[in-house]
Amino acid sequence: MKIEEITLEKLEPGRFIEEQCEEIARQVGDGLAINALSGGVDSSVVTMLGHKAIGNKLKTYFIDNGIMRRNEPGQVVNVFKGLGVHVEILDAREQFFSALKGLTDPEEKREAITQTFYRDVFGDLVKKSGAKFLLQGTIYTDVEETVAGIKRQHNILTQLGIDTKAQFGYTLIEPLIQLRKTGVRKVGEALGLPKEIFARPPFPGPALAARVIGEASPERIAIVREATAIVEEELTGTKAFQYLAILHEDKVTGIRNNKRDYGYQIEIRCWDSTDARTAKPTRLDFGILEKLASRMTTEVKGVVSVTYNIASKPTSTIEAV
Amino acid sequence: MKIEEITLEKLEPGRFIEEQCEEIARQVGDGLAINALSGGVDSSVVTMLGHKAIGNKLKTYFIDNGIMRRNEPGQVVNVFKGLGVHVEILDAREQFFSALKGLTDPEEKREAITQTFYRDVFGDLVKKSGAKFLLQGTIYTDVEETVAGIKRQHNILTQLGIDTKAQFGYTLIEPLIQLRKTGVRKVGEALGLPKEIFARPPFPGPALAARVIGEASPERIAIVREATAIVEEELTGTKAFQYLAILHEDKVTGIRNNKRDYGYQIEIRCWDSTDARTAKPTRLDFGILEKLASRMTTEVKGVVSVTYNIASKPTSTIEAV
Repeated sequence: MKIEEITLEKLEPGRFIEEQCEEIARQVGDGLAINALSGGVDSSVVTMLGHKAIGNKLKTYFIDNGIMRRNEPGQVVNVFKGLGVHVEILDAREQFFSALKGLTDPEEKREAITQTFYRDVFGDLVKKSGAKFLLQGTIYTDVEETVAGIKRQHNILTQLGIDTKAQFGYTLIEPLIQLRKTGVRKVGEALGLPKEIFARPPFPGPALAARVIGEASPERIAIVREATAIVEEELTGTKAFQYLAILHEDKVTGIRNNKRDYGYQIEIRCWDSTDARTAKPTRLDFGILEKLASRMTTEVKGVVSVTYNIASKPTSTIEAV
Repeated sequence: MKIEEITLEKLEPGRFIEEQCEEIARQVGDGLAINALSGGVDSSVVTMLGHKAIGNKLKTYFIDNGIMRRNEPGQVVNVFKGLGVHVEILDAREQFFSALKGLTDPEEKREAITQTFYRDVFGDLVKKSGAKFLLQGTIYTDVEETVAGIKRQHNILTQLGIDTKAQFGYTLIEPLIQLRKTGVRKVGEALGLPKEIFARPPFPGPALAARVIGEASPERIAIVREATAIVEEELTGTKAFQYLAILHEDKVTGIRNNKRDYGYQIEIRCWDSTDARTAKPTRLDFGILEKLASRMTTEVKGVVSVTYNIASKPTSTIEAV
């Protein structure tokens, strides 16, 4: 089935919300639905839509996969508590880390996360809860990139011919699939989400595992988590579309206390973009770049070298893996 | 034996040249000496000193190790021809590449180059030529960094307790060992070297093998050679102390012709420094950075991503390995 994009010009947020709520209510009927909230724009908007549409017939989970950002589980749950939505935290850290163990190929890591998420964690939740529907925040760009063969987005299943009902026991509902990111933000604003949520920079499905080149072990995730916190602290004030820190697998020579220190390199990316289809590196002041580098090499254990991405998309992509 | 630094304040280039020439002539006597000219400042100054001191009793070789920059062998030989110094090119590419094959650890690569250079190539030359002396351009910083354990400089032998006479059959003469880089440049200028030589940015002993993270195969050296040519073309006009391109072993996701392209990343470093002991990244204009990135991703096969180093030394070092 061809999906038709709803462009910004055509989008009327109020009407969109009304129509999607009706459609969700119609599909779920008197059944039960579940969804996973990561705190990103897409899953937050889906949570609010679902809550508005079917209230208590939607159960929302925050899957703590061990690869989220610092303090993220608690923060997300609190924001939604303030909005009247109960979110349950599910500790799945061991399942994810054992699935990621020893994997270095980006596609294999992505596949391990997808399988753990949809088959193990959600398969289990569905069985226990009796839910027949999974709401998720797939957007138009995810479909487009996956179909074009650029990047297999973790949340693309139907478009790749995966029958979730047969394989995992539930039907997918994807209310945002005709929108791009800016459209989703407008809908989020209209739904009453706080700005910290609807204006939040994108964060990849495979979370911090996508920010580590090579194995996403608990130790390496901890390093990139610290680096990510620094980048977000320093760059939140900029108008950039997205900013991120990547832990490289390559080690480089450094020097600390006058001794050789063979250590880690962190790459920082900060993008100017409107829709992620093309992007240019933000022309940050060197003062900011040097402060970022200095904080990384003093606050993040083992980091001796820091770089800033200067290539555009294309030929680069926004994320490294 | 403790080596005493001759600081810039104490250095009198004319007198230094006179004293070193006398000392070289005294040591070599009526014997023969050889030296390897790479075209870098240090080996160029040593070549001129040796030529001035003992004329035809010095045989100068350019060792083509396969890991030099684009057109470097021919250019260096031509410059010295213009100065009246005959330089013989020795094709040792196969020896170096077979020694480097399969090595990824930076210290092992360094050691393979050292051994191939001093034992295989020079050992052979010494036997064939009957030379008893090897002139080389070790400088004070090389000794200092090796002794401090920061980096094993390839040309440090005596200071590590290596008896070259017993092991390789020749005695080392190191006329520049009391100088730092700026002192060497002053001596080079006084010796009549052209500015393109005496003001040349430093280039590491292990040449382009030091600019490749992971294996220094002929294919990977060819990639970093192209990247190096671009960096040198674009940054020659800046006042930077040194600039370089590094080929990473980590591969990253890119996008080309709307398809996923899992490719190479080049890191560019450009340093402000006076003596290499400490250094800061040059605050290049973003226009230059973006041009560098664009040339890398269009002209160098397989490169999809480009970064710029933003960390200082320390904790970074000038080179990556």
